[in-house]
Amino acid sequence: MDAPRWTPTTLSPEEAVEHDRVHGNLTRATRALVEAQLLTEVDHVEVEEVTAEIERLTARLRKATRAGALGVELGPGEREVRAHGNIVAGLRNPVAVLDMERRTVDENRRVTHELHLGPLYEGPPGLVHGGVSALVLDQVLGEAAAVGGSPGMTGRLTIHYRRPTPLGDLTVSARLESSEGRKSIVKGELRDADGRVTVEAEGLFILPSWATDLPEFKARQRAFE
Amino acid sequence: MDAPRWTPTTLSPEEAVEHDRVHGNLTRATRALVEAQLLTEVDHVEVEEVTAEIERLTARLRKATRAGALGVELGPGEREVRAHGNIVAGLRNPVAVLDMERRTVDENRRVTHELHLGPLYEGPPGLVHGGVSALVLDQVLGEAAAVGGSPGMTGRLTIHYRRPTPLGDLTVSARLESSEGRKSIVKGELRDADGRVTVEAEGLFILPSWATDLPEFKARQRAFE
Repeated sequence: MDAPRWTPTTLSPEEAVEHDRVHGNLTRATRALVEAQLLTEVDHVEVEEVTAEIERLTARLRKATRAGALGVELGPGEREVRAHGNIVAGLRNPVAVLDMERRTVDENRRVTHELHLGPLYEGPPGLVHGGVSALVLDQVLGEAAAVGGSPGMTGRLTIHYRRPTPLGDLTVSARLESSEGRKSIVKGELRDADGRVTVEAEGLFILPSWATDLPEFKARQRAFE
Repeated sequence: MDAPRWTPTTLSPEEAVEHDRVHGNLTRATRALVEAQLLTEVDHVEVEEVTAEIERLTARLRKATRAGALGVELGPGEREVRAHGNIVAGLRNPVAVLDMERRTVDENRRVTHELHLGPLYEGPPGLVHGGVSALVLDQVLGEAAAVGGSPGMTGRLTIHYRRPTPLGDLTVSARLESSEGRKSIVKGELRDADGRVTVEAEGLFILPSWATDLPEFKARQRAFE
């Protein structure tokens, strides 16, 4: 397999701002449609008409399209990483629940996100799917590794489910615990709206040898410093 | 917190078939729109027009809507479980990638799904997000626990990332390894299109005491027998 690539963006700073405004609005609209589609109880005739309308909009968006996944672009600023396709934090991914602009990093480099998991993220009735907790924690543990100065890809992830996580407002946070060479240990947790820990996670992150050699990766690392 | 509930469906067998046909088509249309939205390169004027059209369709679907998440319905048949909101396997969830009708169970009760993870599921460039692998494995390990006769909720999940998982066609499978009382151990793995194991998982599943007492849960357990 080819090594994954981080490629420089071709957008100027002004173009990047405008692109993100226009596509951010489109993504929010799609996200709202997805939730409406999941929960709708309109009659079947209306459902079938809306289905046909959605298919027409899909055809319009496909008139010009990328061949593959969005990937990750660097720039236009020195420290900017445009991971817009990322399923947890991508500006153009309607499934993404983390807003990178609103995350906080404290003096101990603990990364914290507030998030809302609605009906789209259900597993057992009324509860967050256990795998969604793992998905969000994997992302935030990876961010904490990078913010702590030891970026890497997940080598091992252990999730402890302490109590059911209700759908709704939640907080996720993580912090680098230790690092040695290209390996680091990160711990984090998910909390419900009352501040109770529902899920705990520990991750081993490893910086692949191919990544350390890439100039793009060094730029990405700088972006988190 | 109230114990989660599995509620009997109010649909007749004929109504359930028609509901699933109409809403299955709507869900597929939404899924296609989501991917088109993620990858589109049409000009900004067209993006803004489509955004407005999507908002109009959302308003139409919201004219009659459920207040909360879909939850899980039982019936109308003796062994039917309608977990239509489930983010990994729900018929009405456009993010769901597993088709319960196409899963296979072998003579050792090993559960296997073939699945396709497209650009929506990206983490590192061109690769499946590590948390998505965890999400899919959590679901399939849970299915294998139930199929093996020891249903439960995830207590602990350990994921070992053996190599990067490329976006595309994949296979996920899992099998109950052992069980004792209300606890069971399940192991599973994710394989790429060439059959190489990319991710391994081990899960501890626990049947909550409140669940063993619910008549709905017993019906749900029967559904997997």
